[in-house]
Amino acid sequence: MFKITDLDPRKLQDWQVAEAAEKHMKTITRLAEEAGITADELLPMGHHIGKVDFMKVLDRLAGKPDGKYIDVTAITPTPLGEGKSTTVMGLVQGLAQCGKKVTGAIRQPSGGPTFNIKGSAAGGGLSQCIPLTPFSLGLTGDIDCVANAHNLAMVAMTSRMQHEFNYDDAMLALKGLRRLDIDPRNVQMKWAIDFCAQSLRDIVIGLGGKMDGFMMSSGFAITVSSEIMAILAVATGLKDLRERMGKIIVAYSRKGEPVTTSDLDVAGAMTAWMVKAINPNLLQTIEGQPVFVHAGPFANIAVGQSSIIADRVALKLADYHVTESGFGADIGFEKFWNIKSRLSGLTPNCAVIVATVRALKMHGGGPQVAPGKKLDPAYTSENLPLLEKGFANLLAHIETVKRAGVNPVVCINSFYTDTKAEIALLKSLTEQAGARVALSEHWLRGGEGAR
Amino acid sequence: MFKITDLDPRKLQDWQVAEAAEKHMKTITRLAEEAGITADELLPMGHHIGKVDFMKVLDRLAGKPDGKYIDVTAITPTPLGEGKSTTVMGLVQGLAQCGKKVTGAIRQPSGGPTFNIKGSAAGGGLSQCIPLTPFSLGLTGDIDCVANAHNLAMVAMTSRMQHEFNYDDAMLALKGLRRLDIDPRNVQMKWAIDFCAQSLRDIVIGLGGKMDGFMMSSGFAITVSSEIMAILAVATGLKDLRERMGKIIVAYSRKGEPVTTSDLDVAGAMTAWMVKAINPNLLQTIEGQPVFVHAGPFANIAVGQSSIIADRVALKLADYHVTESGFGADIGFEKFWNIKSRLSGLTPNCAVIVATVRALKMHGGGPQVAPGKKLDPAYTSENLPLLEKGFANLLAHIETVKRAGVNPVVCINSFYTDTKAEIALLKSLTEQAGARVALSEHWLRGGEGAR
Amino acid sequence: MFKITDLDPRKLQDWQVAEAAEKHMKTITRLAEEAGITADELLPMGHHIGKVDFMKVLDRLAGKPDGKYIDVTAITPTPLGEGKSTTVMGLVQGLAQCGKKVTGAIRQPSGGPTFNIKGSAAGGGLSQCIPLTPFSLGLTGDIDCVANAHNLAMVAMTSRMQHEFNYDDAMLALKGLRRLDIDPRNVQMKWAIDFCAQSLRDIVIGLGGKMDGFMMSSGFAITVSSEIMAILAVATGLKDLRERMGKIIVAYSRKGEPVTTSDLDVAGAMTAWMVKAINPNLLQTIEGQPVFVHAGPFANIAVGQSSIIADRVALKLADYHVTESGFGADIGFEKFWNIKSRLSGLTPNCAVIVATVRALKMHGGGPQVAPGKKLDPAYTSENLPLLEKGFANLLAHIETVKRAGVNPVVCINSFYTDTKAEIALLKSLTEQAGARVALSEHWLRGGEGAR
Amino acid sequence: MFKITDLDPRKLQDWQVAEAAEKHMKTITRLAEEAGITADELLPMGHHIGKVDFMKVLDRLAGKPDGKYIDVTAITPTPLGEGKSTTVMGLVQGLAQCGKKVTGAIRQPSGGPTFNIKGSAAGGGLSQCIPLTPFSLGLTGDIDCVANAHNLAMVAMTSRMQHEFNYDDAMLALKGLRRLDIDPRNVQMKWAIDFCAQSLRDIVIGLGGKMDGFMMSSGFAITVSSEIMAILAVATGLKDLRERMGKIIVAYSRKGEPVTTSDLDVAGAMTAWMVKAINPNLLQTIEGQPVFVHAGPFANIAVGQSSIIADRVALKLADYHVTESGFGADIGFEKFWNIKSRLSGLTPNCAVIVATVRALKMHGGGPQVAPGKKLDPAYTSENLPLLEKGFANLLAHIETVKRAGVNPVVCINSFYTDTKAEIALLKSLTEQAGARVALSEHWLRGGEGAR
Repeated sequence: MFKITDLDPRKLQDWQVAEAAEKHMKTITRLAEEAGITADELLPMGHHIGKVDFMKVLDRLAGKPDGKYIDVTAITPTPLGEGKSTTVMGLVQGLAQCGKKVTGAIRQPSGGPTFNIKGSAAGGGLSQCIPLTPFSLGLTGDIDCVANAHNLAMVAMTSRMQHEFNYDDAMLALKGLRRLDIDPRNVQMKWAIDFCAQSLRDIVIGLGGKMDGFMMSSGFAITVSSEIMAILAVATGLKDLRERMGKIIVAYSRKGEPVTTSDLDVAGAMTAWMVKAINPNLLQTIEGQPVFVHAGPFANIAVGQSSIIADRVALKLADYHVTESGFGADIGFEKFWNIKSRLSGLTPNCAVIVATVRALKMHGGGPQVAPGKKLDPAYTSENLPLLEKGFANLLAHIETVKRAGVNPVVCINSFYTDTKAEIALLKSLTEQAGARVALSEHWLRGGEGAR
Repeated sequence: MFKITDLDPRKLQDWQVAEAAEKHMKTITRLAEEAGITADELLPMGHHIGKVDFMKVLDRLAGKPDGKYIDVTAITPTPLGEGKSTTVMGLVQGLAQCGKKVTGAIRQPSGGPTFNIKGSAAGGGLSQCIPLTPFSLGLTGDIDCVANAHNLAMVAMTSRMQHEFNYDDAMLALKGLRRLDIDPRNVQMKWAIDFCAQSLRDIVIGLGGKMDGFMMSSGFAITVSSEIMAILAVATGLKDLRERMGKIIVAYSRKGEPVTTSDLDVAGAMTAWMVKAINPNLLQTIEGQPVFVHAGPFANIAVGQSSIIADRVALKLADYHVTESGFGADIGFEKFWNIKSRLSGLTPNCAVIVATVRALKMHGGGPQVAPGKKLDPAYTSENLPLLEKGFANLLAHIETVKRAGVNPVVCINSFYTDTKAEIALLKSLTEQAGARVALSEHWLRGGEGAR
Repeated sequence: MFKITDLDPRKLQDWQVAEAAEKHMKTITRLAEEAGITADELLPMGHHIGKVDFMKVLDRLAGKPDGKYIDVTAITPTPLGEGKSTTVMGLVQGLAQCGKKVTGAIRQPSGGPTFNIKGSAAGGGLSQCIPLTPFSLGLTGDIDCVANAHNLAMVAMTSRMQHEFNYDDAMLALKGLRRLDIDPRNVQMKWAIDFCAQSLRDIVIGLGGKMDGFMMSSGFAITVSSEIMAILAVATGLKDLRERMGKIIVAYSRKGEPVTTSDLDVAGAMTAWMVKAINPNLLQTIEGQPVFVHAGPFANIAVGQSSIIADRVALKLADYHVTESGFGADIGFEKFWNIKSRLSGLTPNCAVIVATVRALKMHGGGPQVAPGKKLDPAYTSENLPLLEKGFANLLAHIETVKRAGVNPVVCINSFYTDTKAEIALLKSLTEQAGARVALSEHWLRGGEGAR
Repeated sequence: MFKITDLDPRKLQDWQVAEAAEKHMKTITRLAEEAGITADELLPMGHHIGKVDFMKVLDRLAGKPDGKYIDVTAITPTPLGEGKSTTVMGLVQGLAQCGKKVTGAIRQPSGGPTFNIKGSAAGGGLSQCIPLTPFSLGLTGDIDCVANAHNLAMVAMTSRMQHEFNYDDAMLALKGLRRLDIDPRNVQMKWAIDFCAQSLRDIVIGLGGKMDGFMMSSGFAITVSSEIMAILAVATGLKDLRERMGKIIVAYSRKGEPVTTSDLDVAGAMTAWMVKAINPNLLQTIEGQPVFVHAGPFANIAVGQSSIIADRVALKLADYHVTESGFGADIGFEKFWNIKSRLSGLTPNCAVIVATVRALKMHGGGPQVAPGKKLDPAYTSENLPLLEKGFANLLAHIETVKRAGVNPVVCINSFYTDTKAEIALLKSLTEQAGARVALSEHWLRGGEGAR
């Protein structure tokens, strides 16, 4: 049988590791069954990916106590990469090796930056989520559903503006419409497209004449930054999602009153586009543990958390559930704690802060890193003063987690160039700060981070 | 067991008939198995819809002779509706009642007009394709894939224009690019969105400054009119699709030379978005016969044919395969015969021309029909002279089919208001024109057409 | 004393002839006095140009009978030039040589094409209007006044649209305004600029946000094509001009009702900008006869006639007044006869049709002429058949003039390359057509036309 | 004979005072003659306005010593008005009453705000510049000339961009052009129109296709803010103006190099439009003293000074010449001293700072003033503490003038509501600050300021 330890991550690209693992991956039927999901609850999407009917699972297991809830966050991101997704996968794989029933939850990557070549967002080295290609290429279409729901609101809004412009009040009344009187210079919502389409950021629409709409400034934003993606992340169920879908403010009237999707009578149809997407996707690690992939990335411009629904389902199925918060703890964990946890009512048992010696050296004032250039020796040979100076960054994130009353565990994602003295110094400083330390060399099989 | 004949289409809306039938529909596993598709060839998409790995089926059944090939077309469309999709479903259901192994193939509806309330495009009355809601709401995401592939080309083109504008030849060479020198006033391709977004038809893009792209006129068209949708309809396999994907002309250079997706090095990535979509979707009639749904509608602005791939798979699986050509025979059958048949090498055994007494009366000069108004008595009571005059329309379509050397069968989709004398006259005129006649009252269980 | 006959037009460029003549030109005071204009009626504009207070002149000379009224028009224009302005100047100079009291009237050239290098529009050779530079460069600012009056209407309209958009009916009422409800997609008026500014032809305005106006499609047209320039040409006095100024339709309301400058309460202020411009400008020929320059060119896109006011003043001052109608008689004379004459009540005593042997040869099928290329021998050596064929063009224009009941006189503007046989043939054909013939070699001192 | 002291400014609107005075104003011929301008040097523009051929005057009087040079500036402007232009006129009229040979110089108002109803900019009450209507309505067209010169540069630039876009290097070389490669996103120059046309501030041009120019963001600014208006204000002669006209940076190339009007070969033609405008306009006070009006307003967005040429001519003609610097001394006097004086080489003998009790009270914290509302009692009854607090504003301006080494004279433009104690306090504070004080009640016949 296939053992990932037969693969040498130092000789293989991430995608080669994934490709090797995919030859032996479990069918979605077996994966679901092993995870405790019934055939009725599984909505297969091909042979290796499925969606899970979350309502059926939550109904069936309503009385079962939740597993342990682990949130993975990190120090402030650097171009060097810290390996946050890798750590999530590594934790899931490691806990499984320890004989625990474990699940993970990560976010679906955007199609935009994918084609502009960033990391796969699926982890790296020997700690990855597979199958990799569908993971990177739209998966089961959730982002498309968000775009469709989002753009449907925009179509409804622009059509309404056109109608209100073409018709007087009497004619509107005949059509059963009251005048919303949207101010074209106070429209809050843009269109959604899941590409990095710079030329669509700032546009003028409606130029074609009477039948081609109302002329105004507009633009497209990346789909994963849509408020609907945020709603998908924080909704606790379909009813909650439907309610939130109707409260989206698309614009303001000329009198300054908010105009919502409910005012446009479009929230129901928007929700219809989300009925499929609200069910979380089920994939696996390269060692065959269940991983939920649900909701979008980018904690800087969006919520950037895996979904509450995925976490709730996973906590019913597993003893340990590892979820991920984007960016550093100052954004990602804050949004996890202040938004997601409040809405879900779920409190994490601990928060893992991923740190690397290299990234802390950069925060300590190490030289800039240019893409494609050889790393400066500051990062590949011992430099204790730089590391000590950079520890201030980690310290701040430890305190952020502590302020929430959550136990911080610092995971040092170590590289083969880190020296024993550096690891020892970092361990010692962290423990002095009152946080526990885990070394990835022990349980993480992963490579050097995604990039 | 459920029998559709227990339902009375005169008392139920189409969606109520569909809802009743969906309670008893076959699982996708059973539907595929009965159709002769192996578990390995079926890619389930939930419990009642699947995609079929067409390459595996065609490989396995390469030596098996094709079934009979029936194309359904119609007289020139009128606001009254002729019942073309209904006839396809009715034919499949009827042939199955006759004990034949039969399949159908129709096109996936566009999200645009769906929300502007046209027919469901799934047939009507007791002859429908189910499950209806996913059929109407994006199905398995093929149209989204077309939009993504399409817009990826546009992103590549606009980014390239921006780069070429910002950089001189030396800098471009460093990046491994030769100057394509696209003329912004001679761009052929627009963006794709599958909504009727009038305000996006005629737009100015790239207004935001240096980082926000190159300013030019642009616009969005409905996704189903994309050349990529046409390619999906006519491709004979993945290799063929990949080749066609690289030949799309996006613009012309300032010297007037065509610039293709290959010139933009984007055809491979576009194809990646289509790998899932190229497999046809499998659904069922309300009586449980297999129906393939693949490629897009609108024979007026697009190819408007169900896909060659769906037809090829179906002809291997069934004794009789009923496929559909959009619009009247003058557009739909012509595109079927002159484009689709030439590329597929498949010749139909007969072509069914759907006609109604009512629509022919309108072609004969009957009064206009207003939506929501009561029908003029000309259509609901006997009027032989009007029918005879309107027969000229049917005659022309019969001759179009004959010119192709294909046998025309006129299917009179009769309504309960048609009189015996009218049916007799239409039958007699048709037979004098050298075409055979079928009466839907005998084998079609369907209602009065979708509208 | 200076005699223009000392100058050899074959050795000098037009501007050199003008420069030589300008050294000896009359002061505006003397020119006006000799023309019978009092010091009080003359508004000097520097030393050699003046405006004439037309109301004072017309009041003082109300009882004096008008002089003879001669309109100069031409065959259909060709790239070879026919010498229409040259003929006007030549006629004025020639009639003065014959001892007649004579005046001329031509139109002020546009700044647009001037800088795109067309003819000076001041005549050519030994028959020109001077001083040439101010004539070509805005003269006394009449076109600027037209632009200011015109753009004031546009400012009023766009401000009004902005106000009506920002305020509700109650607030508008407070400001004393009723809602005009202008349809931004049905605006008839564009902005005016007297340059050939192609990039301003089709623009989108009002992009800047709430304070920067209402967003809509708009554009700039050349000032001389403004309706206000047309009004300047046909107004019979200030009161008439004021009334016409208020009737300009700037747009239509969304209900389809016309919105005028009066509705915008701007007609009075627009008229204020025209008070100076309504007085005709007084210049002179290179032999010192008075020439009025008033209103704009381009009979194809505008009225293209010198002003009624200039003609009325001139007819009181002179025994013979020569005025000019742009383009060929089919446009220029038609507009003179059907518009200008009807509004002025002035009937011409004769109409001169300028023709050249060369241009008629081109109308007869002679080869195309490229700018900067040597003329084809067809034009510089004898070719009687081509001339005879081309005479059809002249014939049509003779008939146009005759239909108006006006005597046509064909002025053959002869070139030194014309042969005696050609002149004889043209003379003979013209006389057979019932028109009188004048040869420019006898009394016209002019050169070969402007180009 | 007419005496302005027969008019009661408390009973008449400003325009009524002007109208009464205009009935008795001097002809331009007499005005010029009395001012010492010869008939040859005067370019009459109608009967009461003229332009002065500055080169002839400066040549003739080159050896004559300059008169005394007085600059009028003010405290920081308030909505109450300080009466700066009024003070200039008052000083000219007052010095003339004292038997001095005196001239004034003010700036021509913009057509934009005029129609949006601000002050006439011609002074007020019994101290005004006449004739008022032509003064307010374009005068002799200088602003139009600036607009024409300015827009000619824009036409040249946009045409060039279009040509360079349409043609390759070889074709450009054939036309004798080198590629300027203007970056459309780095164009510095906008178009000019002398109206407050908000909707033209931010526009997109060039939408019409291949022949209608290059698409880019653009806009119109008010003509008086044009760099060409600044050049008119500071040019010392035609040669200097021509040189400056060629140095205007219209845009930057894509490599970041400046592109000037010289690069566009348009500076000569632009200068041709300014040949008339460079001569200062001559008008008169309502008591018949010569006033030059030349160059544009708005010291905040432009230079905002009357022209160097006007001042140089006036200083040769008069014993005392009073010129005006816009806004408060912190902008207007600074620009006068740091820009205009450096370029002209002319040092003022004293600087008058106009102040009012009312405006200083506002600077001291008095209540806001709403247009059309009755003034707060704080301004119309005695309030010494408010005045004392507001004196800080005047103090700062006194020090600004002193820093330049120029003698400040504070002119208290008193109102009938000012109390004796207030005047006494203001006088005392000013003298303690080391500045001399003049009371307008003695020599200024003017009203209460323009508004």
